[in-house]
Amino acid sequence: MQLNENIMKLEQNYLFAEIAMRVRRFREEHPEAEVLSLGINDVTRPLAPAVSDAMSQAAQEMRDAAHFHGYGDVQGERFLREAVCGYYRSFKVAVEPEDVFISDGAKSDLANLCDLFAPESTVLLPNPVYPVFYDTSVMAGRNIIFACGTKENGFLPLPENCGHADLIYLCSPNNPTGAVYTRQQLREWVAFAHKHHACIIYDAAYEAYIRNAALPRSIFEIAGAETCAIEINSFSKMAGFTGVRCSWVIVPRALTAHGQSLHKLWMRRQSTKYNGTSYIVQRGAAAVFSPEGQRQVRNDVQYYMENADLIRNALRRSGVFTTGGEHAPYVWMECPYQMQSWDCFELLLKHHGIVSSPGVGFGAHGEGWLRFSSFGSRETIERAAHKLSALDWDQLALWKVTAVPAQHFPAL
Amino acid sequence: MQLNENIMKLEQNYLFAEIAMRVRRFREEHPEAEVLSLGINDVTRPLAPAVSDAMSQAAQEMRDAAHFHGYGDVQGERFLREAVCGYYRSFKVAVEPEDVFISDGAKSDLANLCDLFAPESTVLLPNPVYPVFYDTSVMAGRNIIFACGTKENGFLPLPENCGHADLIYLCSPNNPTGAVYTRQQLREWVAFAHKHHACIIYDAAYEAYIRNAALPRSIFEIAGAETCAIEINSFSKMAGFTGVRCSWVIVPRALTAHGQSLHKLWMRRQSTKYNGTSYIVQRGAAAVFSPEGQRQVRNDVQYYMENADLIRNALRRSGVFTTGGEHAPYVWMECPYQMQSWDCFELLLKHHGIVSSPGVGFGAHGEGWLRFSSFGSRETIERAAHKLSALDWDQLALWKVTAVPAQHFPAL
Repeated sequence: MQLNENIMKLEQNYLFAEIAMRVRRFREEHPEAEVLSLGINDVTRPLAPAVSDAMSQAAQEMRDAAHFHGYGDVQGERFLREAVCGYYRSFKVAVEPEDVFISDGAKSDLANLCDLFAPESTVLLPNPVYPVFYDTSVMAGRNIIFACGTKENGFLPLPENCGHADLIYLCSPNNPTGAVYTRQQLREWVAFAHKHHACIIYDAAYEAYIRNAALPRSIFEIAGAETCAIEINSFSKMAGFTGVRCSWVIVPRALTAHGQSLHKLWMRRQSTKYNGTSYIVQRGAAAVFSPEGQRQVRNDVQYYMENADLIRNALRRSGVFTTGGEHAPYVWMECPYQMQSWDCFELLLKHHGIVSSPGVGFGAHGEGWLRFSSFGSRETIERAAHKLSALDWDQLALWKVTAVPAQHFPAL
Repeated sequence: MQLNENIMKLEQNYLFAEIAMRVRRFREEHPEAEVLSLGINDVTRPLAPAVSDAMSQAAQEMRDAAHFHGYGDVQGERFLREAVCGYYRSFKVAVEPEDVFISDGAKSDLANLCDLFAPESTVLLPNPVYPVFYDTSVMAGRNIIFACGTKENGFLPLPENCGHADLIYLCSPNNPTGAVYTRQQLREWVAFAHKHHACIIYDAAYEAYIRNAALPRSIFEIAGAETCAIEINSFSKMAGFTGVRCSWVIVPRALTAHGQSLHKLWMRRQSTKYNGTSYIVQRGAAAVFSPEGQRQVRNDVQYYMENADLIRNALRRSGVFTTGGEHAPYVWMECPYQMQSWDCFELLLKHHGIVSSPGVGFGAHGEGWLRFSSFGSRETIERAAHKLSALDWDQLALWKVTAVPAQHFPAL
């Protein structure tokens, strides 16, 4: 047999596995030390009671022959697709249930959407960004170019100096920088996509964290996006579904290329390679959009955002520059004294037991930055904020560190 | 943007969509007629109470911060992987939890495993067989050859006259023919795979329907399979999980090609493109293997097999030849008078309201056969059996029918 060469091009170590390994080593060497994790991607608040009850009830419903559900609609149950559309209506975006596809997670969706496009496609990725965009593009054998985030552009790169691209991945609010595109900026991307006949894959997984109505929550707020964009969103960060698994993809019927409907191609891909999302999970997801569910999950988002405020304020008090964390659960910190990400990561871990995520793990343009996650418990965040605000960076920078440089992206 | 050409090579109509369309038309034209569906793939028995309760409990557990589960192990929770191994031990097959991967369905697994192999791989498929093997191979751009099932070889083709293959798909018990390979026959396939350095993808989704201990329930009962085979199994037909979504894949660590571990490649594929299976669903799946769960799900399998007996006996009483249905939920019938599958399908639908699945929908070598599914309620099956046993095929064959020929596979 011959193997897929592209899958072997991936680097072995996934960023979060590397962080976990280093934290484990630190714990072994310092079993007495307190470790405060601000490095995680995962939520910690329990499921909303409305969601939990809906799933318990659905599981009970299934033991009764009269209410048993077998294979569902591959596209997702109508009740959930309609609930998604109702959610979009709440911020004045018109989406129809026919264009919504339910599945088991944004990571799967991002990966599976690769199936629609030719292997020789050129992919334009923001840098830094969620590593899955890069990894799945490598695995699909794609040519990859970058739109670079910098302190100067507020980590919101625009297409001005980009070459030709067939596919454009955008993530707003951004993981890891917490930066959010404005409507005007998204208009530029939509115009660029039209000019290049490109498709935008818009990852809106952190949309629920936007606190300012002036900022767009969907690419479909932009005129013309329905003919050049696919949007992905997930219940993971909005409603604590990281362990429950549910997401949605919007592929407008108006989106075509070479006379082919991408909506139909996605339907064909899903009908051939997927068999629908768990009925029980879909009942839980629909409950997220009930009035009670919305009140409960918004309360959790608010909780995390208060955490983000604590982290941001503490870091600023220590004298470093931060961005993000206002409309996203991630605070993005510039390492002082031009320290590299992993050096700074090691310093904070070694001397203060604080776990962050090295920015370089999200791309070469994340070098020199750290990401702090607000998904911890209030107690953890308060303890960490207390330590962070009192940080003596001058002293820290003097300490010698043995840091292993690690780059997830190739040098640009 | 450039599209994936392979995805456009797929035919638009999926077999079961075509059947559903014809049944709908029949109902519209004959609103008074009774329709008895023996065409479905889907189970109808409700979930086992043990499974249902385990999921309700897991959903409740998740609303409590102390027991909340976020991102799980991408490979599947240890408790479920161990339970799968315990199940294999019950029929004396040694599998280790490290080699088991949990996911959301056999269809996804079959499709996703394509990612491991080079696009130019040659795929050997039984014919007739579950259409997903064919469709996902087309979508992966593969060269496809067939091992042909016939009445003479009992729809259990052997590799004797097959050319070179890189990938071999086997399905035993077979969908649609209900045929089950013996150990000796599987030994021939394993020897062939070793000779060609091929990988066997073994679909054991109907394994729980085997009633004779002399027949193999896993490819891993065969010596040497651990270095040439991957096995897929699902909770769908074993425990009514078609709407719940859970499956497992066994990729032995001993399986290598060109010095690469396929186990590691699959782990990398899953880590990059998947984010684990719903915790709630995995709790339900683990309950399938509890003593109570096993008693309940085996009872349902027994129920379907009694249905299969009723169908088989009724068809035989009417004078036609059947095979399958003894260790599989599918009875495979030869259409009398050398009728074609869709003609015979139409006759049974039009004159008796009985829905079957045209064998040709599973491949050119299914032409002239029909599949009957035993997944209906006892009442439906008894009514259908009553009609089937009294069938006057001479009379039926005389009636003119307007049947639209349809072929799912290209002519061989």
